[in-house]
Amino acid sequence: MNAAVVPVPIGRVEGCVASHADDLLAVEEALEIRLGNRNLTITMRTPGNDFELAAGFMHSEGMIEDISHIRSMARPNDGSADVVVVELVGELRALVPAQRNFVMTSACGVCGKASLQDLEANACPILPPDDIQLSPEIIHRLPDTLRCAQSIFECTGGLHAAARFDLRGKLECLREDVGRHNAVDKLVGAALLDKRMPMSTSLLLVSGRASFELVQKALMAGIPVMAAVGPPSSLAVATAERSGMTLIGFLRNGRFNVYSGSRRIMGFS
Amino acid sequence: MNAAVVPVPIGRVEGCVASHADDLLAVEEALEIRLGNRNLTITMRTPGNDFELAAGFMHSEGMIEDISHIRSMARPNDGSADVVVVELVGELRALVPAQRNFVMTSACGVCGKASLQDLEANACPILPPDDIQLSPEIIHRLPDTLRCAQSIFECTGGLHAAARFDLRGKLECLREDVGRHNAVDKLVGAALLDKRMPMSTSLLLVSGRASFELVQKALMAGIPVMAAVGPPSSLAVATAERSGMTLIGFLRNGRFNVYSGSRRIMGFS
Repeated sequence: MNAAVVPVPIGRVEGCVASHADDLLAVEEALEIRLGNRNLTITMRTPGNDFELAAGFMHSEGMIEDISHIRSMARPNDGSADVVVVELVGELRALVPAQRNFVMTSACGVCGKASLQDLEANACPILPPDDIQLSPEIIHRLPDTLRCAQSIFECTGGLHAAARFDLRGKLECLREDVGRHNAVDKLVGAALLDKRMPMSTSLLLVSGRASFELVQKALMAGIPVMAAVGPPSSLAVATAERSGMTLIGFLRNGRFNVYSGSRRIMGFS
Repeated sequence: MNAAVVPVPIGRVEGCVASHADDLLAVEEALEIRLGNRNLTITMRTPGNDFELAAGFMHSEGMIEDISHIRSMARPNDGSADVVVVELVGELRALVPAQRNFVMTSACGVCGKASLQDLEANACPILPPDDIQLSPEIIHRLPDTLRCAQSIFECTGGLHAAARFDLRGKLECLREDVGRHNAVDKLVGAALLDKRMPMSTSLLLVSGRASFELVQKALMAGIPVMAAVGPPSSLAVATAERSGMTLIGFLRNGRFNVYSGSRRIMGFS
Protein backbone atom coordinates (compact mmCIF):
# COMPACT_ATOMS: atom_id res chain seq x y z
CA MET A 1 0.00 0.00 0.00
CA ASN A 2 1.36 3.37 -1.00
CA ALA A 3 1.17 6.06 1.70
CA ALA A 4 -0.40 8.38 -0.88
CA VAL A 5 -3.63 6.35 -0.75
CA VAL A 6 -5.69 5.13 2.19
CA PRO A 7 -8.48 2.51 2.33
CA VAL A 8 -11.90 3.50 3.71
CA PRO A 9 -15.23 1.73 4.20
CA ILE A 10 -17.96 3.33 2.10
CA GLY A 11 -21.56 2.93 1.14
CA ARG A 12 -22.13 2.13 -2.51
CA VAL A 13 -25.35 2.78 -4.42
CA GLU A 14 -26.06 1.27 -7.84
CA GLY A 15 -29.46 2.27 -9.05
CA CYS A 16 -31.58 1.79 -5.93
CA VAL A 17 -29.40 -0.91 -4.36
CA ALA A 18 -27.35 0.15 -1.37
CA SER A 19 -24.41 -1.93 -0.14
CA HIS A 20 -21.23 -1.62 1.88
CA ALA A 21 -17.82 -1.72 0.23
CA ASP A 22 -14.22 -0.58 0.53
CA ASP A 23 -12.61 2.18 -1.47
CA LEU A 24 -9.21 3.86 -1.80
CA LEU A 25 -8.81 7.59 -1.27
CA ALA A 26 -6.03 9.90 -2.32
CA VAL A 27 -4.41 11.23 0.84
CA GLU A 28 -4.63 14.98 1.40
CA GLU A 29 -2.77 16.49 4.39
CA ALA A 30 -1.48 19.91 5.29
CA LEU A 31 2.23 20.68 4.82
CA GLU A 32 3.79 23.73 6.41
CA ILE A 33 6.91 25.19 4.82
CA ARG A 34 9.08 27.23 7.18
CA LEU A 35 11.87 29.58 6.22
CA GLY A 36 14.13 29.28 9.24
CA ASN A 37 11.87 29.85 12.22
CA ARG A 38 9.26 31.72 10.26
CA ASN A 39 6.05 30.21 8.85
CA LEU A 40 6.19 30.75 5.10
CA THR A 41 3.21 28.88 3.72
CA ILE A 42 0.86 25.97 4.12
CA THR A 43 -0.45 23.71 1.41
CA MET A 44 -2.83 20.79 1.23
CA ARG A 45 -0.80 18.07 -0.44
CA THR A 46 -0.41 14.34 -0.88
CA PRO A 47 2.47 13.30 1.39
CA GLY A 48 5.70 12.36 -0.34
CA ASN A 49 8.43 14.32 -2.12
CA ASP A 50 7.93 17.14 0.38
CA PHE A 51 11.45 18.54 -0.09
CA GLU A 52 10.87 18.68 -3.84
CA LEU A 53 7.58 20.45 -3.19
CA ALA A 54 9.25 23.04 -0.96
CA ALA A 55 12.09 23.69 -3.42
CA GLY A 56 9.77 23.79 -6.43
CA PHE A 57 7.37 26.16 -4.72
CA MET A 58 10.14 28.58 -3.80
CA HIS A 59 11.46 28.45 -7.35
CA SER A 60 8.04 29.00 -8.90
CA GLU A 61 7.57 32.02 -6.65
CA GLY A 62 10.92 33.52 -7.63
CA MET A 63 12.37 33.12 -4.14
CA ILE A 64 15.30 30.98 -5.35
CA GLU A 65 16.87 30.66 -8.78
CA ASP A 66 18.89 27.57 -8.16
CA ILE A 67 19.23 24.80 -5.60
CA SER A 68 22.55 26.37 -4.54
CA HIS A 69 20.47 29.09 -2.87
CA ILE A 70 19.17 26.51 -0.41
CA ARG A 71 21.54 25.64 2.42
CA SER A 72 19.39 22.85 3.87
CA MET A 73 15.92 21.33 4.00
CA ALA A 74 14.96 19.22 7.00
CA ARG A 75 12.15 18.14 9.28
CA PRO A 76 11.83 20.23 12.44
CA ASN A 77 13.36 19.11 15.74
CA ASP A 78 10.08 17.56 16.86
CA GLY A 79 10.24 15.30 13.82
CA SER A 80 6.87 16.36 12.41
CA ALA A 81 6.26 14.82 8.99
CA ASP A 82 4.00 17.72 8.06
CA VAL A 83 6.66 20.45 8.21
CA VAL A 84 9.70 21.24 6.06
CA VAL A 85 12.22 23.76 7.38
CA VAL A 86 14.24 25.50 4.66
CA GLU A 87 17.44 27.42 5.39
CA LEU A 88 18.72 29.66 2.62
CA VAL A 89 22.25 30.71 1.73
CA GLY A 90 22.31 34.42 2.54
CA GLU A 91 19.22 36.57 2.48
CA LEU A 92 15.98 35.75 0.73
CA ARG A 93 16.39 37.31 -2.68
CA ALA A 94 12.84 38.06 -3.64
CA LEU A 95 9.72 39.77 -2.93
CA VAL A 96 8.91 38.99 0.65
CA PRO A 97 8.10 41.84 3.01
CA ALA A 98 8.58 40.87 6.61
CA GLN A 99 4.94 40.22 7.39
CA ARG A 100 3.98 38.62 4.15
CA ASN A 101 2.40 35.20 4.24
CA PHE A 102 2.63 32.91 1.30
CA VAL A 103 -0.48 30.89 1.14
CA MET A 104 -0.16 27.94 -1.09
CA THR A 105 -3.16 25.86 -1.82
CA SER A 106 -3.77 22.81 -3.91
CA ALA A 107 -4.10 25.11 -6.91
CA CYS A 108 -1.89 28.03 -6.18
CA GLY A 109 0.40 30.28 -8.17
CA VAL A 110 -0.57 33.79 -7.24
CA CYS A 111 0.85 33.05 -3.82
CA GLY A 112 1.48 35.95 -1.50
CA LYS A 113 0.22 38.56 -3.91
CA ALA A 114 -2.64 40.57 -2.50
CA SER A 115 -2.89 43.22 -5.20
CA LEU A 116 -3.02 43.32 -8.98
CA GLN A 117 0.16 45.42 -8.91
CA ASP A 118 1.98 42.66 -7.04
CA LEU A 119 0.85 40.14 -9.61
CA GLU A 120 1.97 42.22 -12.59
CA ALA A 121 5.28 43.05 -10.94
CA ASN A 122 6.11 39.37 -10.93
CA ALA A 123 5.87 38.93 -14.69
CA CYS A 124 6.71 35.64 -16.32
CA PRO A 125 10.07 35.38 -18.09
CA ILE A 126 10.44 35.36 -21.88
CA LEU A 127 11.88 32.08 -23.11
CA PRO A 128 15.16 32.27 -25.07
CA PRO A 129 15.10 31.28 -28.78
CA ASP A 130 15.34 27.59 -29.62
CA ASP A 131 14.99 25.42 -32.69
CA ILE A 132 12.77 22.72 -31.19
CA GLN A 133 10.74 20.81 -33.79
CA LEU A 134 8.28 18.18 -32.59
CA SER A 135 6.41 15.70 -34.73
CA PRO A 136 2.73 15.18 -33.84
CA GLU A 137 3.46 11.48 -33.23
CA ILE A 138 5.62 12.36 -30.25
CA ILE A 139 2.88 14.56 -28.79
CA HIS A 140 0.12 12.00 -29.33
CA ARG A 141 2.03 9.35 -27.38
CA LEU A 142 2.54 11.41 -24.21
CA PRO A 143 -0.78 10.69 -22.43
CA ASP A 144 -0.53 6.92 -22.89
CA THR A 145 3.03 6.96 -21.60
CA LEU A 146 1.85 8.96 -18.59
CA ARG A 147 -1.05 6.64 -17.87
CA CYS A 148 1.10 3.54 -18.02
CA ALA A 149 3.48 5.07 -15.50
CA GLN A 150 0.88 6.41 -13.09
CA SER A 151 0.69 4.26 -10.03
CA ILE A 152 -1.96 5.95 -7.95
CA PHE A 153 -4.33 7.76 -10.24
CA GLU A 154 -5.69 4.57 -11.67
CA CYS A 155 -6.80 3.24 -8.30
CA THR A 156 -8.32 6.36 -6.76
CA GLY A 157 -9.02 8.71 -9.67
CA GLY A 158 -8.16 11.42 -7.18
CA LEU A 159 -4.66 12.51 -8.08
CA HIS A 160 -3.35 14.96 -10.63
CA ALA A 161 -0.17 14.12 -12.48
CA ALA A 162 2.63 16.21 -13.95
CA ALA A 163 5.32 14.60 -16.08
CA ARG A 164 8.54 15.67 -17.72
CA PHE A 165 9.50 14.15 -21.08
CA ASP A 166 12.55 14.67 -23.24
CA LEU A 167 12.16 16.01 -26.78
CA ARG A 168 11.75 12.51 -28.17
CA GLY A 169 8.86 11.79 -25.83
CA LYS A 170 10.76 9.67 -23.28
CA LEU A 171 9.31 9.97 -19.78
CA GLU A 172 11.95 11.34 -17.40
CA CYS A 173 10.00 12.17 -14.25
CA LEU A 174 6.43 11.84 -12.95
CA ARG A 175 4.84 13.33 -9.85
CA GLU A 176 1.28 12.96 -8.53
CA ASP A 177 -0.65 15.00 -5.96
CA VAL A 178 -4.20 15.91 -4.96
CA GLY A 179 -3.23 19.44 -6.00
CA ARG A 180 -2.26 19.90 -9.61
CA HIS A 181 -0.02 22.82 -8.72
CA ASN A 182 1.76 20.71 -6.14
CA ALA A 183 2.38 18.05 -8.78
CA VAL A 184 4.13 20.65 -10.96
CA ASP A 185 6.06 22.11 -8.01
CA LYS A 186 7.26 18.62 -7.08
CA LEU A 187 8.35 18.01 -10.68
CA VAL A 188 10.25 21.30 -10.80
CA GLY A 189 11.70 20.62 -7.36
CA ALA A 190 12.93 17.21 -8.54
CA ALA A 191 14.71 18.91 -11.45
CA LEU A 192 16.22 21.45 -9.06
CA LEU A 193 17.50 18.77 -6.70
CA ASP A 194 18.79 16.79 -9.68
CA LYS A 195 20.55 19.91 -11.05
CA ARG A 196 18.61 19.76 -14.32
CA MET A 197 17.59 23.40 -14.51
CA PRO A 198 16.54 25.17 -16.65
CA MET A 199 14.21 22.60 -18.15
CA SER A 200 14.81 24.04 -21.62
CA THR A 201 14.78 20.69 -23.40
CA SER A 202 11.77 19.26 -21.56
CA LEU A 203 8.13 18.78 -22.42
CA LEU A 204 5.65 19.12 -19.55
CA LEU A 205 2.39 17.16 -19.54
CA VAL A 206 -0.34 17.81 -16.96
CA SER A 207 -3.32 15.53 -16.49
CA GLY A 208 -5.99 18.21 -16.17
CA ARG A 209 -6.54 21.74 -17.38
CA ALA A 210 -3.93 24.39 -18.07
CA SER A 211 -4.46 27.44 -15.85
CA PHE A 212 -2.42 30.64 -15.71
CA GLU A 213 -0.71 29.45 -12.58
CA LEU A 214 0.54 26.19 -14.12
CA VAL A 215 1.87 28.06 -17.16
CA GLN A 216 3.59 30.52 -14.83
CA LYS A 217 5.30 27.73 -12.90
CA ALA A 218 6.45 26.06 -16.13
CA LEU A 219 7.82 29.35 -17.48
CA MET A 220 9.77 29.99 -14.27
CA ALA A 221 11.41 26.60 -14.91
CA GLY A 222 12.21 27.49 -18.54
CA ILE A 223 9.95 24.79 -20.01
CA PRO A 224 9.35 25.53 -23.73
CA VAL A 225 6.45 23.14 -24.44
CA MET A 226 3.51 22.39 -22.14
CA ALA A 227 0.65 20.03 -22.95
CA ALA A 228 -2.57 19.47 -21.02
CA VAL A 229 -5.13 16.68 -21.36
CA GLY A 230 -7.83 19.30 -20.69
CA PRO A 231 -8.42 22.80 -22.01
CA PRO A 232 -6.44 25.96 -21.17
CA SER A 233 -7.88 29.20 -19.82
CA SER A 234 -7.71 32.50 -21.69
CA LEU A 235 -4.99 33.84 -19.38
CA ALA A 236 -2.94 30.65 -19.70
CA VAL A 237 -2.95 31.11 -23.49
CA ALA A 238 -2.14 34.83 -23.32
CA THR A 239 0.74 34.21 -20.92
CA ALA A 240 2.17 31.35 -22.97
CA GLU A 241 1.91 33.47 -26.13
CA ARG A 242 3.69 36.44 -24.55
CA SER A 243 6.50 34.32 -23.17
CA GLY A 244 7.05 32.25 -26.31
CA MET A 245 5.86 28.93 -24.89
CA THR A 246 4.12 26.28 -26.98
CA LEU A 247 0.84 25.47 -25.22
CA ILE A 248 -1.12 22.36 -26.25
CA GLY A 249 -4.58 21.45 -24.93
CA PHE A 250 -7.19 18.71 -25.31
CA LEU A 251 -4.42 16.20 -25.94
CA ARG A 252 -6.29 12.90 -26.23
CA ASN A 253 -7.56 10.30 -28.66
CA GLY A 254 -5.08 11.17 -31.39
CA ARG A 255 -5.94 14.85 -31.44
CA PHE A 256 -4.72 18.07 -29.88
CA ASN A 257 -5.07 21.82 -30.15
CA VAL A 258 -2.12 24.22 -30.34
CA TYR A 259 -2.92 27.50 -28.59
CA SER A 260 0.45 29.24 -28.89
CA GLY A 261 3.95 28.69 -30.27
CA SER A 262 2.84 26.43 -33.11
CA ARG A 263 6.25 27.02 -34.79
CA ARG A 264 7.63 24.16 -32.68
CA ILE A 265 5.09 21.68 -34.10
CA MET A 266 5.82 20.12 -37.50
CA GLY A 267 3.03 20.84 -39.95
CA PHE A 268 2.71 24.43 -38.73
CA SER A 269 6.40 25.39 -38.76
CA MET B 1 -21.34 35.56 -26.80
CA ASN B 2 -21.00 35.24 -23.06
CA ALA B 3 -18.23 37.31 -21.48
CA ALA B 4 -17.12 34.21 -19.64
CA VAL B 5 -15.82 32.73 -22.89
CA VAL B 6 -13.59 34.20 -25.59
CA PRO B 7 -12.91 32.98 -29.16
CA VAL B 8 -9.32 32.32 -30.25
CA PRO B 9 -7.62 31.09 -33.43
CA ILE B 10 -5.81 27.79 -32.83
CA GLY B 11 -3.89 25.11 -34.62
CA ARG B 12 -5.61 21.73 -34.68
CA VAL B 13 -3.86 18.40 -35.17
CA GLU B 14 -5.74 15.20 -35.94
CA GLY B 15 -3.35 12.31 -36.38
CA CYS B 16 -0.65 13.90 -38.55
CA VAL B 17 -2.88 16.49 -40.20
CA ALA B 18 -2.39 20.08 -39.05
CA SER B 19 -5.01 22.75 -39.74
CA HIS B 20 -6.18 26.11 -38.50
CA ALA B 21 -9.44 26.50 -36.63
CA ASP B 22 -11.27 28.58 -34.04
CA ASP B 23 -11.91 27.60 -30.46
CA LEU B 24 -13.61 29.01 -27.36
CA LEU B 25 -11.70 29.50 -24.13
CA ALA B 26 -12.96 29.95 -20.59
CA VAL B 27 -11.96 33.44 -19.48
CA GLU B 28 -9.57 33.63 -16.51
CA GLU B 29 -8.72 37.08 -15.10
CA ALA B 30 -7.43 38.37 -11.78
CA LEU B 31 -9.90 39.86 -9.29
CA GLU B 32 -8.67 41.91 -6.36
CA ILE B 33 -10.89 42.12 -3.26
CA ARG B 34 -10.26 45.17 -1.09
CA LEU B 35 -11.46 45.72 2.44
CA GLY B 36 -11.84 49.49 2.51
CA ASN B 37 -8.54 50.81 1.22
CA ARG B 38 -6.61 47.67 2.07
CA ASN B 39 -5.76 44.87 -0.37
CA LEU B 40 -7.34 41.73 1.06
CA THR B 41 -6.83 39.08 -1.58
CA ILE B 42 -6.47 38.32 -5.25
CA THR B 43 -8.00 35.43 -7.14
CA MET B 44 -7.90 34.17 -10.72
CA ARG B 45 -11.54 33.94 -11.66
CA THR B 46 -13.98 33.91 -14.54
CA PRO B 47 -15.52 37.42 -14.63
CA GLY B 48 -19.13 37.66 -13.53
CA ASN B 49 -20.88 37.50 -10.15
CA ASP B 50 -17.90 39.23 -8.58
CA PHE B 51 -19.88 40.61 -5.64
CA GLU B 52 -21.15 37.12 -4.88
CA LEU B 53 -17.57 35.88 -5.06
CA ALA B 54 -16.37 38.53 -2.62
CA ALA B 55 -19.20 37.91 -0.15
CA GLY B 56 -18.91 34.13 -0.43
CA PHE B 57 -15.15 34.22 0.07
CA MET B 58 -15.43 36.34 3.20
CA HIS B 59 -18.10 34.00 4.55
CA SER B 60 -16.08 30.87 3.81
CA GLU B 61 -13.11 32.40 5.62
CA GLY B 62 -15.19 33.26 8.68
CA MET B 63 -14.81 37.02 8.19
CA ILE B 64 -18.59 37.60 8.02
CA GLU B 65 -21.47 35.51 9.32
CA ASP B 66 -24.24 37.24 7.49
CA ILE B 67 -24.75 39.71 4.66
CA SER B 68 -25.80 42.26 7.26
CA HIS B 69 -22.11 42.50 8.22
CA ILE B 70 -21.38 44.04 4.82
CA ARG B 71 -22.21 47.73 4.50
CA SER B 72 -21.45 47.95 0.77
CA MET B 73 -19.73 46.32 -2.16
CA ALA B 74 -18.74 48.46 -5.14
CA ARG B 75 -16.22 48.96 -7.92
CA PRO B 76 -13.43 51.40 -7.03
CA ASN B 77 -13.56 55.04 -8.07
CA ASP B 78 -11.51 54.35 -11.21
CA GLY B 79 -14.24 51.97 -12.34
CA SER B 80 -11.93 48.96 -12.64
CA ALA B 81 -13.90 45.81 -13.42
CA ASP B 82 -11.19 43.69 -11.77
CA VAL B 83 -11.60 45.08 -8.26
CA VAL B 84 -14.36 44.80 -5.64
CA VAL B 85 -14.24 47.15 -2.65
CA VAL B 86 -16.02 45.81 0.45
CA GLU B 87 -16.98 48.02 3.39
CA LEU B 88 -18.01 46.24 6.58
CA VAL B 89 -20.39 47.29 9.33
CA GLY B 90 -18.12 47.83 12.31
CA GLU B 91 -14.83 46.05 12.72
CA LEU B 92 -13.77 42.92 10.95
CA ARG B 93 -14.84 40.16 13.30
CA ALA B 94 -12.34 37.46 12.55
CA LEU B 95 -8.91 36.34 12.32
CA VAL B 96 -7.08 39.03 10.46
CA PRO B 97 -3.90 40.46 11.94
CA ALA B 98 -3.07 43.83 10.46
CA GLN B 99 -0.45 42.62 8.02
CA ARG B 100 -2.12 39.42 7.00
CA ASN B 101 -2.73 38.84 3.33
CA PHE B 102 -5.44 36.55 2.18
CA VAL B 103 -4.35 34.87 -0.92
CA MET B 104 -7.16 33.28 -2.77
CA THR B 105 -6.44 31.21 -5.77
CA SER B 106 -8.53 29.24 -8.14
CA ALA B 107 -8.51 26.42 -5.60
CA CYS B 108 -8.24 28.04 -2.25
CA GLY B 109 -9.62 27.42 1.20
CA VAL B 110 -6.65 27.58 3.51
CA CYS B 111 -6.48 31.27 2.73
CA GLY B 112 -4.34 33.44 4.93
CA LYS B 113 -3.19 30.59 7.11
CA ALA B 114 0.56 30.21 7.18
CA SER B 115 0.87 27.69 9.97
CA LEU B 116 -0.74 24.40 10.90
CA GLN B 117 -1.88 26.01 14.15
CA ASP B 118 -3.76 28.68 12.20
CA LEU B 119 -5.46 26.00 10.16
CA GLU B 120 -6.55 23.96 13.15
CA ALA B 121 -7.72 27.05 15.01
CA ASN B 122 -10.25 27.66 12.28
CA ALA B 123 -12.06 24.36 12.69
CA CYS B 124 -15.14 23.55 10.65
CA PRO B 125 -18.50 23.83 12.42
CA ILE B 126 -20.51 20.79 13.49
CA LEU B 127 -23.86 20.64 11.66
CA PRO B 128 -27.00 20.68 13.82
CA PRO B 129 -29.21 17.55 13.84
CA ASP B 130 -31.71 17.12 11.00
CA ASP B 131 -34.01 14.41 9.73
CA ILE B 132 -33.14 14.64 6.04
CA GLN B 133 -33.91 11.44 4.11
CA LEU B 134 -32.97 11.32 0.43
CA SER B 135 -33.91 8.62 -2.04
CA PRO B 136 -31.13 7.48 -4.40
CA GLU B 137 -33.30 8.55 -7.36
CA ILE B 138 -33.00 12.17 -6.33
CA ILE B 139 -29.22 11.89 -6.08
CA HIS B 140 -28.83 10.10 -9.42
CA ARG B 141 -30.67 12.87 -11.26
CA LEU B 142 -28.49 15.74 -10.04
CA PRO B 143 -25.67 15.55 -12.61
CA ASP B 144 -28.04 15.46 -15.59
CA THR B 145 -29.94 18.42 -14.22
CA LEU B 146 -26.67 20.28 -13.79
CA ARG B 147 -25.47 19.49 -17.29
CA CYS B 148 -28.70 20.63 -18.90
CA ALA B 149 -28.42 23.94 -17.11
CA GLN B 150 -24.74 24.57 -17.75
CA SER B 151 -24.30 27.18 -20.41
CA ILE B 152 -20.56 27.49 -20.70
CA PHE B 153 -19.00 24.20 -19.72
CA GLU B 154 -20.39 22.43 -22.73
CA CYS B 155 -18.70 24.78 -25.19
CA THR B 156 -15.25 25.15 -23.60
CA GLY B 157 -14.88 22.21 -21.24
CA GLY B 158 -12.92 24.64 -19.12
CA LEU B 159 -15.27 25.67 -16.35
CA HIS B 160 -16.10 24.06 -13.05
CA ALA B 161 -19.67 24.19 -11.81
CA ALA B 162 -21.28 24.31 -8.39
CA ALA B 163 -25.03 23.97 -7.99
CA ARG B 164 -27.53 24.23 -5.18
CA PHE B 165 -30.57 21.93 -5.21
CA ASP B 166 -33.49 21.65 -2.83
CA LEU B 167 -34.15 18.38 -1.01
CA ARG B 168 -36.35 17.15 -3.84
CA GLY B 169 -33.58 17.66 -6.38
CA LYS B 170 -34.84 20.91 -7.91
CA LEU B 171 -32.03 23.12 -9.18
CA GLU B 172 -32.08 26.46 -7.36
CA CYS B 173 -28.78 28.09 -8.32
CA LEU B 174 -25.80 27.34 -10.59
CA ARG B 175 -22.44 29.09 -10.81
CA GLU B 176 -19.47 28.37 -13.08
CA ASP B 177 -15.84 29.43 -12.87
CA VAL B 178 -12.36 28.39 -13.99
CA GLY B 179 -11.69 27.89 -10.29
CA ARG B 180 -13.82 25.29 -8.58
CA HIS B 181 -13.48 27.09 -5.25
CA ASN B 182 -14.65 30.30 -6.85
CA ALA B 183 -17.72 28.49 -8.17
CA VAL B 184 -18.62 27.44 -4.62
CA ASP B 185 -17.85 30.89 -3.20
CA LYS B 186 -20.12 32.46 -5.84
CA LEU B 187 -22.88 30.01 -4.98
CA VAL B 188 -22.58 30.74 -1.26
CA GLY B 189 -22.37 34.47 -2.00
CA ALA B 190 -25.57 34.26 -4.04
CA ALA B 191 -27.33 32.64 -1.07
CA LEU B 192 -25.95 35.35 1.23
CA LEU B 193 -27.16 38.15 -1.03
CA ASP B 194 -30.50 36.37 -1.39
CA LYS B 195 -30.77 35.98 2.42
CA ARG B 196 -30.99 32.20 2.17
CA MET B 197 -28.45 31.33 4.85
CA PRO B 198 -27.77 28.90 6.39
CA MET B 199 -28.16 26.50 3.47
CA SER B 200 -29.45 23.80 5.81
CA THR B 201 -32.01 22.41 3.38
CA SER B 202 -29.75 22.48 0.31
CA LEU B 203 -27.79 19.86 -1.59
CA LEU B 204 -24.50 20.98 -3.13
CA LEU B 205 -23.20 19.39 -6.33
CA VAL B 206 -19.71 20.11 -7.67
CA SER B 207 -18.55 19.06 -11.12
CA GLY B 208 -15.09 17.82 -10.15
CA ARG B 209 -13.43 16.36 -7.10
CA ALA B 210 -14.21 17.02 -3.46
CA SER B 211 -11.21 18.49 -1.66
CA PHE B 212 -10.92 19.53 1.99
CA GLU B 213 -11.34 23.15 1.00
CA LEU B 214 -14.62 22.62 -0.80
CA VAL B 215 -16.01 20.65 2.13
CA GLN B 216 -14.88 23.42 4.47
CA LYS B 217 -16.67 26.09 2.42
CA ALA B 218 -19.86 24.02 2.33
CA LEU B 219 -19.75 23.44 6.08
CA MET B 220 -19.32 27.15 6.76
CA ALA B 221 -22.55 27.63 4.79
CA GLY B 222 -24.34 24.91 6.78
CA ILE B 223 -24.84 22.58 3.81
CA PRO B 224 -25.75 19.07 5.06
CA VAL B 225 -25.26 17.07 1.83
CA MET B 226 -22.49 17.52 -0.73
CA ALA B 227 -22.04 15.45 -3.87
CA ALA B 228 -19.15 15.42 -6.32
CA VAL B 229 -18.92 13.91 -9.79
CA GLY B 230 -15.32 12.98 -8.99
CA PRO B 231 -13.68 11.39 -5.94
CA PRO B 232 -13.05 13.00 -2.55
CA SER B 233 -9.70 13.25 -0.79
CA SER B 234 -8.96 11.61 2.55
CA LEU B 235 -9.13 14.94 4.39
CA ALA B 236 -12.42 15.86 2.72
CA VAL B 237 -13.94 12.61 4.02
CA ALA B 238 -12.48 13.02 7.53
CA THR B 239 -13.75 16.59 7.75
CA ALA B 240 -17.23 15.71 6.48
CA GLU B 241 -17.42 12.80 8.93
CA ARG B 242 -16.37 14.93 11.90
CA SER B 243 -18.88 17.68 11.07
CA GLY B 244 -21.80 15.38 10.33
CA MET B 245 -22.03 16.11 6.60
CA THR B 246 -23.14 13.54 4.03
CA LEU B 247 -20.40 13.37 1.39
CA ILE B 248 -21.10 11.61 -1.91
CA GLY B 249 -18.49 10.98 -4.63
CA PHE B 250 -18.22 9.41 -8.09
CA LEU B 251 -21.81 10.42 -8.77
CA ARG B 252 -22.35 9.34 -12.37
CA ASN B 253 -23.94 6.74 -14.59
CA GLY B 254 -26.52 5.66 -12.04
CA ARG B 255 -23.99 5.00 -9.29
CA PHE B 256 -22.47 6.82 -6.38
CA ASN B 257 -20.38 6.24 -3.27
CA VAL B 258 -21.31 7.52 0.18
CA TYR B 259 -18.22 8.44 2.19
CA SER B 260 -19.85 9.87 5.31
CA GLY B 261 -23.28 10.56 6.79
CA SER B 262 -25.00 7.66 5.06
CA ARG B 263 -27.90 7.98 7.55
CA ARG B 264 -29.40 10.63 5.23
CA ILE B 265 -29.54 8.20 2.28
CA MET B 266 -32.45 5.77 2.12
CA GLY B 267 -31.24 2.19 2.03
CA PHE B 268 -28.56 2.89 4.64
CA SER B 269 -30.69 4.74 7.16
